[in-house]
Amino acid sequence: MFHSVTIVGVGLISGSFSLILKDKGLTQHVIGVSRTESSIKKALELGIIDEALPLEEAVKKSDLVYVAIPVDATIPMMQRIMNLVTDKQIVVDAGSTKQALCEALAHHPMRSRFVASHPMWGTEYSGPEAAVREAFSGRTCVICEKEKSDKDAVETVEKIYKELGMRVTYMDPVSHDMHAAYVSHISHITSFALANTVLEKEKEDNAIFELASGGFESTVRLAKSSPAMWLPIFKQNKEHVLDVLNEHITQLRKFKSCLEKENYEYLQELMESANKINRIIK
Amino acid sequence: MFHSVTIVGVGLISGSFSLILKDKGLTQHVIGVSRTESSIKKALELGIIDEALPLEEAVKKSDLVYVAIPVDATIPMMQRIMNLVTDKQIVVDAGSTKQALCEALAHHPMRSRFVASHPMWGTEYSGPEAAVREAFSGRTCVICEKEKSDKDAVETVEKIYKELGMRVTYMDPVSHDMHAAYVSHISHITSFALANTVLEKEKEDNAIFELASGGFESTVRLAKSSPAMWLPIFKQNKEHVLDVLNEHITQLRKFKSCLEKENYEYLQELMESANKINRIIK
Repeated sequence: MFHSVTIVGVGLISGSFSLILKDKGLTQHVIGVSRTESSIKKALELGIIDEALPLEEAVKKSDLVYVAIPVDATIPMMQRIMNLVTDKQIVVDAGSTKQALCEALAHHPMRSRFVASHPMWGTEYSGPEAAVREAFSGRTCVICEKEKSDKDAVETVEKIYKELGMRVTYMDPVSHDMHAAYVSHISHITSFALANTVLEKEKEDNAIFELASGGFESTVRLAKSSPAMWLPIFKQNKEHVLDVLNEHITQLRKFKSCLEKENYEYLQELMESANKINRIIK
Repeated sequence: MFHSVTIVGVGLISGSFSLILKDKGLTQHVIGVSRTESSIKKALELGIIDEALPLEEAVKKSDLVYVAIPVDATIPMMQRIMNLVTDKQIVVDAGSTKQALCEALAHHPMRSRFVASHPMWGTEYSGPEAAVREAFSGRTCVICEKEKSDKDAVETVEKIYKELGMRVTYMDPVSHDMHAAYVSHISHITSFALANTVLEKEKEDNAIFELASGGFESTVRLAKSSPAMWLPIFKQNKEHVLDVLNEHITQLRKFKSCLEKENYEYLQELMESANKINRIIK
């Protein structure tokens, strides 16, 4: 389908994307662009990329350019790429925030060759060695400002994500960022904070982690996520993340107040209400 | 090894315990005690129990009595059982809190036939149909007040848990309850509160869950846990749970303050510090 695909950043998302594209026969040649020498080396070893090139050469040789780097670096990088592309090429990003990027590219003369996407999948690991062939499948991919991209570009990108096993949905960038704060960004803050809570305790008590159960691991695993990736997300999505964080603290204070006042009837209600998440996640 | 074993409560923990005991050839006959007719029926169907009997008859016929019911019901139940046993029998509980139970049984004339244990394993599901043969393995089991149980009883119980693939560790009941608050109970409150945070939002926005990613699911899955099991745990462990909950809210407020003040250097530090959980969980 594609003569050549460039991935900008060779990490968890772009690496998984490349491996699956090749598995599905959508391309036989993937070019990697990264300033991190060790990532390039690893990506070549793992068969994620077939060659590494400087950005200009890579873009010139590619039908599709897929950008998956921290969201603060995405904006200037995307501007450079958009200055290089022709109307035969398609540029896609995979960032976890959409408003700042869409605004930055709003008036670019090549805007219509760009498709703003967010495949809602990830793990707590990063780097090319974290890439997996089971990525994306069964999850939702959000495409923003569909109407600002050329029809052929959107159709091609949709087709790829559907090949990856994803559902595709459409949203404006502000709605996307608000939704992402609720179903992804807040989980990361909760996990980071829970890890710090327990690590704080550990200073005086070496034995505490011997007892860590599966429930704890599940709740805290996102605390291993990369600050280089997450700090820019929290920065760009500050307002929505603060909204949800305030609501989450309010909810935790309800549990605290129930315990303090021994209001066990209301505590029971709070848990029963939380059980309704059953309807939504398997 | 055991002619006959009684499980009191036929749910996730006792059901898994029974299935594995039978698989390992540690007993061929398990008796179920439960007031819930549907659970008994299901447990018989699933081969978890071989017969159901009233408590008195069941205890009389058993070498080992394993109690896994909500921690508030455990105390009176355990008193009834201890009034029935001889010094040839062993009684074990699997509850998530230990102080209240150990205090309640401290002066019972048969105290030495009781082994207070907490296998640190569970899932968000309950009932006999939630029982799995992969339970317990690789986790830690805490035994409290070892010195108050007869040597043969402790050795037998240790041997069983080791057969189940568990590490066995010893703790006084107060330390156990404090540790459990940190590595298990707080995770449940966090998940319950996170579910309520997002469900609150959902009232005005049906689409929000379409986007739920794996990270969200992992952080929120404990919110499906049974209030009937968790309310008594929070009640009995109120002081420790409140301590940890206060610390957790403090940690979340640090994230909030960093975002509000745009103190991104400190936000980065908070995340780097949380990353140290890496050392502890795989």
